[in-house]
Amino acid sequence: MRRIWILRLSHRRERDKRLTTHVALTARALGAEGMAYSGDIDTTLEDRIKDINRRWGGDFKVEYIEDPVKWINLMKMNGFKIIHLTMYGVNISDIINELRKYDKLVLIVGSEKVEKIYFEISDYNVAIGNQPHSEVAAIAVFLDRYFRGRELRKKFVGGEYYIIPSERGKIVKKKVNGL
Amino acid sequence: MRRIWILRLSHRRERDKRLTTHVALTARALGAEGMAYSGDIDTTLEDRIKDINRRWGGDFKVEYIEDPVKWINLMKMNGFKIIHLTMYGVNISDIINELRKYDKLVLIVGSEKVEKIYFEISDYNVAIGNQPHSEVAAIAVFLDRYFRGRELRKKFVGGEYYIIPSERGKIVKKKVNGL
Repeated sequence: MRRIWILRLSHRRERDKRLTTHVALTARALGAEGMAYSGDIDTTLEDRIKDINRRWGGDFKVEYIEDPVKWINLMKMNGFKIIHLTMYGVNISDIINELRKYDKLVLIVGSEKVEKIYFEISDYNVAIGNQPHSEVAAIAVFLDRYFRGRELRKKFVGGEYYIIPSERGKIVKKKVNGL
Repeated sequence: MRRIWILRLSHRRERDKRLTTHVALTARALGAEGMAYSGDIDTTLEDRIKDINRRWGGDFKVEYIEDPVKWINLMKMNGFKIIHLTMYGVNISDIINELRKYDKLVLIVGSEKVEKIYFEISDYNVAIGNQPHSEVAAIAVFLDRYFRGRELRKKFVGGEYYIIPSERGKIVKKKVNGL
């Protein structure tokens, strides 16, 4: 089974609250297992994601880590390859086939400026295009290409509700016994 | 030539400033021509994107529109197909081949709750998966699939700088005569 974790660096509780939430929700919807974050501890963020799991299913994890470098080394020891997503890196189109060989990945995204150590400690620095854009977009494109689009068909186990895709309108159904 | 515009509904100057910026930057980096937005007028947002164009090239447009429905109808008359990105819609995997037949698209994304009229007025309601996530991620995945990944190879004309993709580090070069 493929296992993907996100590492969101230097979360600032006030300033980044919505963007870090979007990072987590995107990672969750596109097939990642969890998000670790450093910077400010933010229990509101953690509760928001728990609430999404409760309503929409799955078991996406959010974990605060105090020392990102230590955590990265731990993940490396557990067989994870470390991918830093940055506009300065190698174009994803040139490297995604190689990265698909690994089934355990950590994707690092910063909030503002990312310290040099992360360029060095990572196994790969990968650019989702060499133009400035968004860490949310970077995660989305990376995961969609990595999973070859299959992640968007995934059913989330548990939760209270599910959606029936619809050409026009909103069809939300209540789950029975989480199925 | 394919022409894609984003319509960002109900921008709130304070609350949405960073997310709407991410929407614009993602659209720009992944091949769209411009973003129209409704809600609060925000000249700081517009200046921020102009500054990105000045430094990194291209001619991505940001335009405030007062009446989104009127603007949508105008775009329809000009041959654009209207795609509303929503978690309630048809799975993108089931419809992207059909949508690729059109070379002029408007992608609508909301900020909070989107009014019913946009579900009705759109030619297609499309879901980037039926789980809650992010309008930034939705635009990113849509454009990447629509352009089959080629948009990330695009060179931006003009601007002052460009990046040389690098395995480890940041290589930024100054452009000569915008090339």
